[in-house]
Amino acid sequence: MEVTRKNFKEVLPEVDKAIKECCFIAIDGEFSGLDAANHSHIAPFDTHEERYGKVKKSCSDFLMFQVGICTFKYNQKTERYEARPFNFYVFPRPHSRVAPDLRFLCQASSIDFLASQGFNFNKVFLEGISYLTPEQEGNLRDVLQQKHREVSLFSSPAFTTPGTDEQAGVTKGPIHIPDEQKEFIRKNCEFIQNFMDELVKDTLNLPPSNGFQRKLLYQTIRQKFTGVHLETKTGEKKERYIVVTRVKSEDELKKKEKEKQAAEIAEIDDAVGFTQVIKMISQSGKLLLGHNMLLDIIHILHQFYYPLPNSYEDFKAMTHCAFPRIVDTKLMGSMNPFKEKIPSTGLGDLQKFLEFPPFCKPEVDLAEGFSSYNTPDQHHEAGFDAYLTGLCYISMTNYLGSLQKNASGRVSPTSSLLDPYVNKLFLMRMADAPYIDLTGPDLKLKREHVFNISFPKEWKNEDLNQLFSPFGNIQISWLNDTSAYVSLYRKEEAKNVMKTLCKDNTVYQIIRYNDHKTGNSANLR
Amino acid sequence: MEVTRKNFKEVLPEVDKAIKECCFIAIDGEFSGLDAANHSHIAPFDTHEERYGKVKKSCSDFLMFQVGICTFKYNQKTERYEARPFNFYVFPRPHSRVAPDLRFLCQASSIDFLASQGFNFNKVFLEGISYLTPEQEGNLRDVLQQKHREVSLFSSPAFTTPGTDEQAGVTKGPIHIPDEQKEFIRKNCEFIQNFMDELVKDTLNLPPSNGFQRKLLYQTIRQKFTGVHLETKTGEKKERYIVVTRVKSEDELKKKEKEKQAAEIAEIDDAVGFTQVIKMISQSGKLLLGHNMLLDIIHILHQFYYPLPNSYEDFKAMTHCAFPRIVDTKLMGSMNPFKEKIPSTGLGDLQKFLEFPPFCKPEVDLAEGFSSYNTPDQHHEAGFDAYLTGLCYISMTNYLGSLQKNASGRVSPTSSLLDPYVNKLFLMRMADAPYIDLTGPDLKLKREHVFNISFPKEWKNEDLNQLFSPFGNIQISWLNDTSAYVSLYRKEEAKNVMKTLCKDNTVYQIIRYNDHKTGNSANLR
Ligand SMILES: Nc1nc2c(ncn2[C@@H]2O[C@H](COP(=O)(O)OP(=O)(O)O)[C@@H](O)[C@H]2O)c(=O)[nH]1
Ligand SMILES: Nc1nc2c(ncn2[C@@H]2O[C@H](COP(=O)(O)OP(=O)(O)O)[C@@H](O)[C@H]2O)c(=O)[nH]1
Repeated sequence: MEVTRKNFKEVLPEVDKAIKECCFIAIDGEFSGLDAANHSHIAPFDTHEERYGKVKKSCSDFLMFQVGICTFKYNQKTERYEARPFNFYVFPRPHSRVAPDLRFLCQASSIDFLASQGFNFNKVFLEGISYLTPEQEGNLRDVLQQKHREVSLFSSPAFTTPGTDEQAGVTKGPIHIPDEQKEFIRKNCEFIQNFMDELVKDTLNLPPSNGFQRKLLYQTIRQKFTGVHLETKTGEKKERYIVVTRVKSEDELKKKEKEKQAAEIAEIDDAVGFTQVIKMISQSGKLLLGHNMLLDIIHILHQFYYPLPNSYEDFKAMTHCAFPRIVDTKLMGSMNPFKEKIPSTGLGDLQKFLEFPPFCKPEVDLAEGFSSYNTPDQHHEAGFDAYLTGLCYISMTNYLGSLQKNASGRVSPTSSLLDPYVNKLFLMRMADAPYIDLTGPDLKLKREHVFNISFPKEWKNEDLNQLFSPFGNIQISWLNDTSAYVSLYRKEEAKNVMKTLCKDNTVYQIIRYNDHKTGNSANLR
Repeated sequence: MEVTRKNFKEVLPEVDKAIKECCFIAIDGEFSGLDAANHSHIAPFDTHEERYGKVKKSCSDFLMFQVGICTFKYNQKTERYEARPFNFYVFPRPHSRVAPDLRFLCQASSIDFLASQGFNFNKVFLEGISYLTPEQEGNLRDVLQQKHREVSLFSSPAFTTPGTDEQAGVTKGPIHIPDEQKEFIRKNCEFIQNFMDELVKDTLNLPPSNGFQRKLLYQTIRQKFTGVHLETKTGEKKERYIVVTRVKSEDELKKKEKEKQAAEIAEIDDAVGFTQVIKMISQSGKLLLGHNMLLDIIHILHQFYYPLPNSYEDFKAMTHCAFPRIVDTKLMGSMNPFKEKIPSTGLGDLQKFLEFPPFCKPEVDLAEGFSSYNTPDQHHEAGFDAYLTGLCYISMTNYLGSLQKNASGRVSPTSSLLDPYVNKLFLMRMADAPYIDLTGPDLKLKREHVFNISFPKEWKNEDLNQLFSPFGNIQISWLNDTSAYVSLYRKEEAKNVMKTLCKDNTVYQIIRYNDHKTGNSANLR
């Protein structure tokens, strides 16, 4: 189901119900880019801390503008799952002139890719649901409270024009009305006179005007009319116009002011928008699934939760606090007993492999009102990818269940069978550290068979292969033009490397990985 | 006329002709944002150098993704202008895997604004014309030449798979084909066998495949078939597939290689795309018009010309070199003799004012094939805004002409009547320095009547007004919570300010603007 700001309010109770009733939730996001330039890119011999630092820095300037959330409810009668895929378009639309005006980064290749898949950017920008972090929401409410308090302390500001260039602070007398504007001003005064005389409507919207015309209008109307309240509003097409309201008494003016304040508070409620959905998921404490979900988690925390901590350990704690039970299906598919049976863990491939023996196609229906996802075209739509992620999870857990002695079909999302997979996030392109463990110490990195080597910039892979040929096959991870990490496949050869290669007068320099990391290069050569 | 990558090649000769035949050219751009956060915003008491620095920093991370170019040709017979508005969609699509993959910034409020005006982002991202700066183009050609040179030195690489994860450098034996892939591989081999047997077609496109499948295919096909050339291509939807070509001899292989190299060169020619249009305009040396065009100029230089220089003087020189004759219609409209007659210089307002006495509606036709711009809806489309800019220019120059003794209708774009306006760029929100002079020294800033004042953060405008009340009205430009510039309207009072306000034991500190700029605060209080 597609959710935009047009139907968000209407659909939100349904989302709430779906989250409350389901067994588990799958999530997927689409981003405006994947990694910022200028930052160091992820590499096979990153440490866990380095990797978190790199991903945090290189992704948090991008925007997650589509969020797929698919809930899976188990129907005891039919013994089948009911899936509810929601596809949310989100966009940080500045809801008012005091709202944060976000700057975000786009990566040309990511945008190009999404565009070629038929991604609808116009829908994101035009109909995306707003959101605020709790911090932003708090700030806005503080500012508003402060403003309302000042209003009640001092006089009513209802007669003043909403702060525009007040800061410019230019104190001038009344502006001269140029000839070209006289007709426009005269006409508007006529509208107001009729409105005041007729006593039919309560408010009058003047025609759209530019800033200069509004300045003239405010000035003229205040001179000519009493008992009117003026306010500038913004229409759908960003045109701005003055709304004139008749006021009879001081009391009515106060009532108007109260209404205005209530509207301003409601505006913030609206602006919180999609953040509510993440709050619901977090508060449900339900099992959350994702496929290669580190980036998704980082974006979700950053956009809808709290600022990403600098410390890696704090990040783990914060993630666990927000989502107490997580399974990453890419990681699951690349661990035992699936590893040997699944040759490719890309989401699309994985889901297809998991329909064939030794696995079984999972029994899942789309709930009523959720248009069926039958065509392969929907790939890379976040809602569809979340749905596929759920299918993968069901196939894999069913398989785990079937391996048990008293095989009984369904595996509960709290089953201990899931323990090896829970609260671990897949790490891409890591040589030897396949995941982040959110609730325990990470795997200790054993890199005695890895070496840092510097060399002339003419060197290529074959030069390194040549140099290391006495020790068998190697894996090379380039750091820059003149240095790389080299890792041995035959780890038992590690002890021979330094003896053989660390000589005087070579064009290259070699040191052990661990010494390189701890900066011990000087005293070890 | 809308120009996208679908019709760019076809329309380019027409653009070339329009530029060659016209009297002057108007230009306008739409951007993904206006000013980056974190940078200091423009302020009324910036110096010229400061302003350039701020605008350069705060705008150059954004993208100009629509460029309007309108040429105006004078028809001697009809004594009317013919306008040719082109509206180009541009996007830095990475044309190949070695092309630059740009990151660019978006500002939520700008995107929201454009979206609300009906701006079509999907068209930009899907159909935007590519471009490269001369620097990027040079680099790509160098890399390609280097590659081609290596190929001719060593053997033909036509049989090798195009470099994918080669850097990962993992040297492994042949991959085991998992059961799930066997059918896919078998089918593909069957396709190839038929293709080889039938001798009907020259090439065969295999069905789309993922990276893993292609690895398996390359490996299998090389084992099973000889006399085939394999190449991976990317389709419209980014799907990747292998193209199989029959090769009979070493010669044919060489010919294939030549063709491939020619195609790679043509790919770069294509990628240069929109940059060609800017080159044409620059080389024409024709008068270039814009409305409030500093941002447009900065973006054009940055995206299609050379990197923006750090030095302000270098920026002036570079702009003048790229566009030897420029008129900014916003500046023109706010200078004599227009200043007094035009109350608002926003593009839309200006154009309307200039249709009424003492001005005349300009006599302009849209050239054949350029759909007429009659509806007000097209506002904020770059092509339309460029067209309006041209109309403003014609009205204003006609008016200048009519003031001459021997009034003769049209004013030539090289007329000396334009001298006061030529090669000056309007500066927004400057207190006293309305423009950048591209070809001479800028106006000297006289700011003896401006003061820098620091105060407790509770202070508001009224406190400053109060403090300065002995000297008449003031203009305030806030620097931050606790300091501002204050400028006197009655400049003659300047000499009294320090005498009266600079006392011991005040909660505020005041120093002269010039001393503040030169950092002389310490020894002057
Ligand atoms: N730099 C970077 N790129 C990532 C990361 N996660 C995903 N990507 C990119 O996103 C693409 C899709 O990856 P993934 O989500 O794993 O999809 P899958 O291939 O279907 O499993 C990959 O090709 C990567 O280029 C990350 O943590 N860092
Ligand atoms: N920060 C900044 N904003 C600019 C600059 N130039 C234009 N803008 C913004 O762009 C908007 C449109 O300005 P302009 O091109 O002058 O359009 P006009 O009002 O029709 O003349 C303005 O409201 C500004 O907010 C600039 O140099 N710096």
